Amino acid sequence: MITIRDVAREAGVSVATVSRVLNHSAAVTQETREKVLGIVGQLGYRPNANAQALASQVSDTIGVVVMDVSDPFFGALVKAVDTVAQRMQKHVLINNSYHQADKERHAIEVLIRQRCGALIVHAKALADDELASLMDQVPGMVLINRVVPGYAHRCVCLDNVSGALMAMRMLQQQGHRRIGYLGSSHTIEDTDQRRAGWRQALAEQATQPAESWIASAEPDMQGGEAAMVELLGRNLHLSAVFAYNDSMAAGALTALKDNGIAVPQQLSVIGFDDIPISRYTDPQLTTVRYPIVSMAKLATELALKGAAGLLDESAGHCFMPTLVRRHSVAPCQSVAAITIRNDTAM
Amino acid sequence: MITIRDVAREAGVSVATVSRVLNHSAAVTQETREKVLGIVGQLGYRPNANAQALASQVSDTIGVVVMDVSDPFFGALVKAVDTVAQRMQKHVLINNSYHQADKERHAIEVLIRQRCGALIVHAKALADDELASLMDQVPGMVLINRVVPGYAHRCVCLDNVSGALMAMRMLQQQGHRRIGYLGSSHTIEDTDQRRAGWRQALAEQATQPAESWIASAEPDMQGGEAAMVELLGRNLHLSAVFAYNDSMAAGALTALKDNGIAVPQQLSVIGFDDIPISRYTDPQLTTVRYPIVSMAKLATELALKGAAGLLDESAGHCFMPTLVRRHSVAPCQSVAAITIRNDTAM
Repeated sequence: MITIRDVAREAGVSVATVSRVLNHSAAVTQETREKVLGIVGQLGYRPNANAQALASQVSDTIGVVVMDVSDPFFGALVKAVDTVAQRMQKHVLINNSYHQADKERHAIEVLIRQRCGALIVHAKALADDELASLMDQVPGMVLINRVVPGYAHRCVCLDNVSGALMAMRMLQQQGHRRIGYLGSSHTIEDTDQRRAGWRQALAEQATQPAESWIASAEPDMQGGEAAMVELLGRNLHLSAVFAYNDSMAAGALTALKDNGIAVPQQLSVIGFDDIPISRYTDPQLTTVRYPIVSMAKLATELALKGAAGLLDESAGHCFMPTLVRRHSVAPCQSVAAITIRNDTAM
Repeated sequence: MITIRDVAREAGVSVATVSRVLNHSAAVTQETREKVLGIVGQLGYRPNANAQALASQVSDTIGVVVMDVSDPFFGALVKAVDTVAQRMQKHVLINNSYHQADKERHAIEVLIRQRCGALIVHAKALADDELASLMDQVPGMVLINRVVPGYAHRCVCLDNVSGALMAMRMLQQQGHRRIGYLGSSHTIEDTDQRRAGWRQALAEQATQPAESWIASAEPDMQGGEAAMVELLGRNLHLSAVFAYNDSMAAGALTALKDNGIAVPQQLSVIGFDDIPISRYTDPQLTTVRYPIVSMAKLATELALKGAAGLLDESAGHCFMPTLVRRHSVAPCQSVAAITIRNDTAM
């Protein structure tokens, strides 16, 4: 690896002079500049990005921390950040953190050490005060899908409870009462909030769910398949299920098909997130839209503003989910049967 | 430990000159080259000691360049790299390059400047000589899904043509002759190789495909849906389609369902890659398995070995795809009809 010392020796100047040339300082003669740049090209020297960022106090790198880029939800998040970054002539470094505190801490610290001026962080395991302390150190750090009290202007979040209520009330309007929940086994607040919405909606209709109406697994297709099989095995006479996310809902559809249960005729399924796959399942998934692309774009803009010291401290950034009606929800069969009987009796 | 500086001192040349000799640069006289190589042999200097120094300086970061992490194939690649990285107590920085030469170049250079000792690069647009020159500079740089002549020991690849032939011969064994191709609009060699396999298999059965049997689009679910609609509109009486990848095949299934065409009874569909989604489509996709997880793990191990100067220069790393039989392929209807008629006649 060629170092700045090799360049200096070859050019017959000091390391400081090479550094001045590379940082576009005016205090270098044109002759020296050309000589040094010639040697840089000749040796194939690459300035250390850390050193350069330190010298110039600016960074063209945006850092992103997500749970796992191979999860389609986080893939969409990262791609949205990248879209804004490209428009702003920045580049993006991505780190996975798997919802574990030590990995979240490490991922953030790596990106800070890499002198990322702007950081978009999806952190669920770290405590509020640790995140607050990191945000104090890095003005361009913004949280996504998390609110730390006192830092709301640097947090972009979604109202998860309202999203779950929307999904549940839609099922209830179709006559469903016995509605199971396919939950995530990740102990993060989204899991709790969506389950709380499920429970609240059932309570509004005076339905008392048993704990057996919940099955939890990894929040991916395989997990959804396993959790649905688990619920079916318990023989609970559910007429619908609400899934923690679309990946789990897609897995549930496969389990139902394997068991000869027609969706939505015999069982309705509703997801959460509206990732692209939800348009390609059979039937296409009815779901709750998580506007992750808009949220990630906003978070990136806020992070860049924060890095430049231009943040509006009074603004809040809480998004609201919306319903997407496709073909995996139908009126509750037993209610339909009751209606028909009533019609006949009249 | 003999360093490059010891060699330079003994030979009476600069470190940069030694580096140029070791990197086979043309900008060195024959006399100097022989002198330096003589000293290298005399002192027992191993050129990779330099790489080792680099590795010890920065070795906790592995860089990965992929087309787009939000594509499930590349998500799986990145996750496999991360799995190895975590086992080795390293962390991973990820960069997207969108199959564009300038973005590929930039993504690699950013990671080199971030002092990533090990680099796993999926680059399709850059020319062989540019990649070769980068690999000369970075001993821990390994290519995935690409072979640069002379660097086979640092390239992990798949035999795409054989994969396409496997898919096609399986369809042909089921009696299919009129087999369409859902191609990728990305102008990368994988596209050409899989199409070449499709064409070769048809030629083996004396089938002359018209260009109209190919429809191309973005290699994702939306692209597959659009390309399938395009083929259907051409009214070609195809009995099967081979898709560039599983995402396109999944999109095609949706288009076929929307048009009331039963898969596999009326039309067989085969994909490529075996990404997780292929187990969750309806019907589950028959496909060609691209062992991307094994390949990415091997590439990561090679990159770490390369960074440490421990690569076996004689090894090659070309993987072979395998068939995964699920439920989207059935015997050709018209052939079945002919067989039934023959049975009746007997």
